[in-house]
Amino acid sequence: MKNDVSIGLLGLGVVGSGVIKLIENHRKELVHQVGCDVNIKRVLIRDPEKIRNVQLDQTLLTTDPDEVLKNPEIDVIVEVMGGTEQARHYILEAFQAKKHVITANKDLIALYGPELEDAASRNQCDLFYEASVAGGIPILRGLSDGLVSDRIHQVMGIVNGTTNYILTKMNEEGTTYEDALKKAQELGFAEADPTADVEGLDAARKMAILSRLAFSTDIELEDVEVNGISNLTLSDLQYGKQLGYTMKLIGFANCHNQNVEVSVQPTFLSNEHPLAAVKNEYNAVYVNGEAVGETMFYGPGAGSLPTATAVMSDVINVIKNMRLGVNGRQFIKPRFKSVITPPDQRFSQHYLRLDVRDEAGALSAISHLFNEMDISFERVLQIPSSKSNLAEIIFVTHRTSLEKFEKAMFELERLNVVESIHSSYRVEGDVEE
Amino acid sequence: MKNDVSIGLLGLGVVGSGVIKLIENHRKELVHQVGCDVNIKRVLIRDPEKIRNVQLDQTLLTTDPDEVLKNPEIDVIVEVMGGTEQARHYILEAFQAKKHVITANKDLIALYGPELEDAASRNQCDLFYEASVAGGIPILRGLSDGLVSDRIHQVMGIVNGTTNYILTKMNEEGTTYEDALKKAQELGFAEADPTADVEGLDAARKMAILSRLAFSTDIELEDVEVNGISNLTLSDLQYGKQLGYTMKLIGFANCHNQNVEVSVQPTFLSNEHPLAAVKNEYNAVYVNGEAVGETMFYGPGAGSLPTATAVMSDVINVIKNMRLGVNGRQFIKPRFKSVITPPDQRFSQHYLRLDVRDEAGALSAISHLFNEMDISFERVLQIPSSKSNLAEIIFVTHRTSLEKFEKAMFELERLNVVESIHSSYRVEGDVEE
Repeated sequence: MKNDVSIGLLGLGVVGSGVIKLIENHRKELVHQVGCDVNIKRVLIRDPEKIRNVQLDQTLLTTDPDEVLKNPEIDVIVEVMGGTEQARHYILEAFQAKKHVITANKDLIALYGPELEDAASRNQCDLFYEASVAGGIPILRGLSDGLVSDRIHQVMGIVNGTTNYILTKMNEEGTTYEDALKKAQELGFAEADPTADVEGLDAARKMAILSRLAFSTDIELEDVEVNGISNLTLSDLQYGKQLGYTMKLIGFANCHNQNVEVSVQPTFLSNEHPLAAVKNEYNAVYVNGEAVGETMFYGPGAGSLPTATAVMSDVINVIKNMRLGVNGRQFIKPRFKSVITPPDQRFSQHYLRLDVRDEAGALSAISHLFNEMDISFERVLQIPSSKSNLAEIIFVTHRTSLEKFEKAMFELERLNVVESIHSSYRVEGDVEE
Repeated sequence: MKNDVSIGLLGLGVVGSGVIKLIENHRKELVHQVGCDVNIKRVLIRDPEKIRNVQLDQTLLTTDPDEVLKNPEIDVIVEVMGGTEQARHYILEAFQAKKHVITANKDLIALYGPELEDAASRNQCDLFYEASVAGGIPILRGLSDGLVSDRIHQVMGIVNGTTNYILTKMNEEGTTYEDALKKAQELGFAEADPTADVEGLDAARKMAILSRLAFSTDIELEDVEVNGISNLTLSDLQYGKQLGYTMKLIGFANCHNQNVEVSVQPTFLSNEHPLAAVKNEYNAVYVNGEAVGETMFYGPGAGSLPTATAVMSDVINVIKNMRLGVNGRQFIKPRFKSVITPPDQRFSQHYLRLDVRDEAGALSAISHLFNEMDISFERVLQIPSSKSNLAEIIFVTHRTSLEKFEKAMFELERLNVVESIHSSYRVEGDVEE
């Protein structure tokens, strides 16, 4: 057995630099934990001219992938370069060279996770990706280890820091969506092109990964329904607030009788829900297990050092497995083929905001329709509209199926008294429900 | 290698029954996870006549400890009987018989943890106790695994469900301490004799365990300073609320330059702090690490099945270690001998409520005194008192050392204008501080 372990880094951006810093700053504790030394052997970079804010022997840098992937001295590849196609290609090469792989790349795992796990397993290599979901929060290990004798029914996550920051500004300071996004960009919480974040795609990738682990199923990224926050208006957030709700972009993963529903959508959360208190750029994942009940893991979802701690926890696990000679055994074949939950089996509360003609009998006509469809209300709020002859009515339904609710929306649009359906959002009620 | 693992249970109360249920309900997944079957072989009970709400072959029950502890067929002992002296004795016997031990017993681990770990290590046995702190929350493994490449500076915990339930009732419904305690007793959240909970002793035990793991130090239970909630008045809670704080019983563990401070005390938390939103009987542990920043683990602190999931996660770890042949290796010798942080190195904000004579110059005299002692205020609130000629003044200081603050209290009592010091509490400010 070698008495040190060598790491090859693919990429030297924000997370890569964090990994190097942590190894330097914690070498003593690392050796104590794993019983051998840990070294960075080679670092693949794109641009050798770029000035980098990290202390590193410059001779370790290379632009030639083979010097990392085919280097016989390297035991573990840490992929922090981002992107999907090239990263996938490099990682498959690494497995062929019998190297263990750690990645922080959610896009890659969401798209190619099962394929990469197969390749790892065939080569008796480890593949870990704790950093790919919710940065510094040890949620993947929490799901696969800590709650192993339980049956998880639901995972709800605030897994995108950018949108949570924007929504916090809108909720608490009444900032418009546009201004909040600009502020997030100034602070580095949002990219110049924020599409992947604000349209929910980033969250969808993380939810695909979380639901695979939580339910041990084979959910694909394309199975995840996605709605973003770019159309949210301050007025909806404020009405929600009046009714005791906080607007959050929530990733849902529900599993009942092998029916799986995974979605990302703007949601009015009851203020009593533990996720409602998760603010700014923080992430949190709420897990509901049959035995354990409600648990929540909270922490930073991104950032150089937080994400690097997750990478390092994977590094330590790989090294422990190497010393025990048990690499490549963590993969669990999906327990079942997932069936996407049909709309008549999807239950939740709904917020519905209507523009109605301000005339006698309007509320009565609408109530009658809902009553006929067997949908009842928890709350109703009527407000005079700024437009003449119109009023706004906001309904919060009791739990009902998505199918019923969509049918009601269809019928509502045909009612004379309804001018238009302004908006509708999912509502997650008190945690007792 | 045997193809099944046999468990001996010590005790068949709430947690023991939960363990049996989980094994029955998840046998298939368990086998899948650990690669062998898991069986309950013997259960030590005190009273064979007692009627028990658990499905179990009655012939497994015994009142003779030797039938469990010296049973050559048993591999793992799960201690869920409670108490300290007898449990300690049994566990030491189990190690001599080379059996691995899992315990949910915080009193035992807080008092005898280091001794038991020594015995386990000498016999190459595992000793795990995830269930001893915060029931269903996988916090111990989170501290020792997930954050391993980090340096933890602070752990703050709401680790006692009884007191958190009582404080939630007082905070949110204005219930008196006595009524809230009674309600907690009716709901089974509080014992008939609530002393250990309400005086903070239960929380102190958990904080001793948490601080040992978080800082890798040798803190003893007697090093933990303890203050309970039985003297709290509704009026203080309400004043705190006006100032933007929520009263919680907080366990603090701080470590700076090998100085360690562990305490349990009623604390005004800023409403912005993630722990402020933890309500009712729920527990949460907030961890501040140098690299990861702020993380929080939230969940049920007690209950049959939640606690049993923690026991089962330990069972699975023991079995994995057995199959790998690496039991008894998880123990980390304390990195350093702890030095208790002296009062001049303990910094926090303070809430101070004074009864003062309602006369000109009173506030000025007090302000002058604080100014001389170099203590400044973040907030001041003066209220006419119901007692004639008296006023109440509430100060919230900026961060200052405990030594300075205690000196100021001493001087305050000698001021003529100060009738009495009504109360004072630690304040934890905004998380940015």
